[in-house]
Amino acid sequence: MFERRHLLGLEGVSAAEIAFLLDTAESFKEVSEREIKKVPTLRGRTVVNLFYENSTRTRTSFEIAAKRLSADTINLSASSSSAQKGETLTDTARNLAAMRPDAIIVRHPSAGAPHLLARHVDCPIINGGDGAHEHPTQALLDLLTIRSHKGQIAGLTVAIVGDLLHSRVARSNLFGLRTMGARVRFVGPPTLVPPEFADLGAELVNDLHEGLRDADVIMMLRIQRERMNGRYFSSLDEYSRLYCLSGEAVAKARKDVIILHPGPMNRGVEISSTVADGPYSVIMDQVTNGVAVRMAALYVLVGRRREIESAGEDAVNEPVPLRRAAAAE
Amino acid sequence: MFERRHLLGLEGVSAAEIAFLLDTAESFKEVSEREIKKVPTLRGRTVVNLFYENSTRTRTSFEIAAKRLSADTINLSASSSSAQKGETLTDTARNLAAMRPDAIIVRHPSAGAPHLLARHVDCPIINGGDGAHEHPTQALLDLLTIRSHKGQIAGLTVAIVGDLLHSRVARSNLFGLRTMGARVRFVGPPTLVPPEFADLGAELVNDLHEGLRDADVIMMLRIQRERMNGRYFSSLDEYSRLYCLSGEAVAKARKDVIILHPGPMNRGVEISSTVADGPYSVIMDQVTNGVAVRMAALYVLVGRRREIESAGEDAVNEPVPLRRAAAAE
Amino acid sequence: MFERRHLLGLEGVSAAEIAFLLDTAESFKEVSEREIKKVPTLRGRTVVNLFYENSTRTRTSFEIAAKRLSADTINLSASSSSAQKGETLTDTARNLAAMRPDAIIVRHPSAGAPHLLARHVDCPIINGGDGAHEHPTQALLDLLTIRSHKGQIAGLTVAIVGDLLHSRVARSNLFGLRTMGARVRFVGPPTLVPPEFADLGAELVNDLHEGLRDADVIMMLRIQRERMNGRYFSSLDEYSRLYCLSGEAVAKARKDVIILHPGPMNRGVEISSTVADGPYSVIMDQVTNGVAVRMAALYVLVGRRREIESAGEDAVNEPVPLRRAAAAE
Repeated sequence: MFERRHLLGLEGVSAAEIAFLLDTAESFKEVSEREIKKVPTLRGRTVVNLFYENSTRTRTSFEIAAKRLSADTINLSASSSSAQKGETLTDTARNLAAMRPDAIIVRHPSAGAPHLLARHVDCPIINGGDGAHEHPTQALLDLLTIRSHKGQIAGLTVAIVGDLLHSRVARSNLFGLRTMGARVRFVGPPTLVPPEFADLGAELVNDLHEGLRDADVIMMLRIQRERMNGRYFSSLDEYSRLYCLSGEAVAKARKDVIILHPGPMNRGVEISSTVADGPYSVIMDQVTNGVAVRMAALYVLVGRRREIESAGEDAVNEPVPLRRAAAAE
Repeated sequence: MFERRHLLGLEGVSAAEIAFLLDTAESFKEVSEREIKKVPTLRGRTVVNLFYENSTRTRTSFEIAAKRLSADTINLSASSSSAQKGETLTDTARNLAAMRPDAIIVRHPSAGAPHLLARHVDCPIINGGDGAHEHPTQALLDLLTIRSHKGQIAGLTVAIVGDLLHSRVARSNLFGLRTMGARVRFVGPPTLVPPEFADLGAELVNDLHEGLRDADVIMMLRIQRERMNGRYFSSLDEYSRLYCLSGEAVAKARKDVIILHPGPMNRGVEISSTVADGPYSVIMDQVTNGVAVRMAALYVLVGRRREIESAGEDAVNEPVPLRRAAAAE
Repeated sequence: MFERRHLLGLEGVSAAEIAFLLDTAESFKEVSEREIKKVPTLRGRTVVNLFYENSTRTRTSFEIAAKRLSADTINLSASSSSAQKGETLTDTARNLAAMRPDAIIVRHPSAGAPHLLARHVDCPIINGGDGAHEHPTQALLDLLTIRSHKGQIAGLTVAIVGDLLHSRVARSNLFGLRTMGARVRFVGPPTLVPPEFADLGAELVNDLHEGLRDADVIMMLRIQRERMNGRYFSSLDEYSRLYCLSGEAVAKARKDVIILHPGPMNRGVEISSTVADGPYSVIMDQVTNGVAVRMAALYVLVGRRREIESAGEDAVNEPVPLRRAAAAE
């Protein structure tokens, strides 16, 4: 069960809640494999994508998820928004809320932006990435991918490699993986693996090969090229030489290791093409699972909540149980 | 009744027409409060948002309105449009019209742009704001908000405060409010309250406190910061000191005054946060009413017209009376 | 019949295939003239518009086409895409494909981009314009417009005038027109009509009046102003003096000539307003036919293929024959 009103992060979310979200996502995966990829679950609901940072993958994934649930979607980007006219984030959100959306997905460069919205609007908020803080649906899709391939998460060793310092993906995964019982290693140069993460339960390792030893799962992080020139590292070339995931590095991990990357990839920088396209890569599965996880999040926050609140309403409004929805289509 | 083909402005629109639009909007308000916020009224119709100026609120409001009527929506912005390739506005519109949309909503920096389109295309045009000329759906949502709170518009004193010179919101409201029998005061510095407005029926007042005296309604206009530095006013600080709506200023108005603002607000510039979030503020109601007014405009121009023209067609095409539509969903 | 998985260009596409696409488009034209402009053919399918170049007309036309077939549409533009984050085109496409779209329409400044995608993703790819290479749906809508007005294409003389060198529209038309049995003249200054086109079956003419002599069809190409200043031509004025389509020039053609332009037009540069808006112009028909052609392409690549593959499925999934779909709505 997941009784929260919002999905703001995985910090503090229980193992039972995460398992419930993953189970729900699992049941939605099949919808995207059908010919008619649509269930009527959120018909007549309005889902707003409020993106203050550019994104292909996440925005598209949420938009497709909402549409496959039959919701209407509205896209708002920072460049066209009232933010440019000096409006506060809170006012923008309250204005949107006054148009009665059923959920707002927000991506924002500032950590805590979704939490601020959640305090000022009535409808569910989903964090689509806030600064270097959290990106819960990314972590959920990673967890789903790992669970699908490994059967369970508990007991696995997961190495997350790269720029941990700035990574909301790594933070959300750390919370989720630890809660689900995995061992988590943060692997990268000292400037990008700050000691504070040890307090959150990560093992910190600076050497790539040591960090990958006996790993069940390797998760590579995207490197922002401009960060690797001087401030955090001497040069991009030097970074790649030490931390790029090559076939040789993969060999340090377990024989049945799986390799994840949240994308977009810098091929040849943090991951070699051989590895990205090789037999251990489950990167495309992550993307496919992303749609299912977002369908689950929308269903749980919007559809299911209503289902509970409105038990006894008429047939049209009766929420369709997942399996029945599939059949009815 | 509203028999016009387009909604280009409120100048010359009769009290009966305005009342009909407001009544229709009133009947749509309830749709957005439902769980399934959708009526089939405009199913299979195509509504185009052609926005040559950025806008969060207005474009989103129209898009949500169209979708709640089950129309398909297409968004076109200036930055991605053929305008950049040297195409004339008329050619862009005629090209769109050749794709057989059922309505085009246009926002344009030039006054008269929607009227130009209306002469060259077949389908209904809704003015979403043209230069400093008109913004009829904004005025209609203001009228609906006032009527909802005050019971009627006739006899009220409405003070509109700020940069009247450049405000299409003020102009459309002036036409609408005067037609509905309200007394309208334009309040602002002499450079921003040109004497010509007196000919259109506005009382012109330069002192804020005098302008607000015994007002039933205060409507604050958005200040464009860059305009308040030299050309029209000595400085933004000076402007705010004299014209920012504070609690003290509100006290000059009637005890049951309501306060409107079209947004986006510059908190601390033209309106204090205490007032914006205070008990007299109906600013969020305006936004909610905006969706209803735009549903009404689309219904009246697209759905109802067809209803009249196609009386006797088959059941699928039979337009659904509003109340029945609500029940049927 | 059209058995190909993708629509990448008209080069090598047979007369029977083209005729089938045109016939299918013909049957869809009527949908856009209805009150309820929608058939359920692609309900629950996801169509992605992936545009790396700006476009009003083509993107809108595809989006309207998809929506009138009841598909869900997702728009992605270069400016908001991962391309800016250094992701390769192939990775972007594979990521999109992992979200299980039913078709991807791609416009890209590089020739061959759609072909690259077609090799890396599972779903049908439609070329929405690639560099100076091909723009097959534009040529198909031109062919449909010509056929509608002339009864047939075989035996006609078609003069295509302007910047042939950079025109994907001209190339796709050359393939399509030649295959359908028309005689094609490429008319323009020597710098813009390279001799290689003669090998593809075009007659090359440098003089406008000579090129238009006895033409049944004149197709004017859009001039990119910046190209006509020095590199390919001495000046834009000089270009217009020699190649702008005026009434006098039209008089060289047959009395029942029709005039096409893919838009957006530079009035007074490559075509005079008198001609563009005159009795021989079928430019608006082209735009209307564009929606029908794109509905046909989507139907043939997505809906019909499924129809063939899924014969025997249940009633909901049964693809609706075109005529029946029309009636059922």
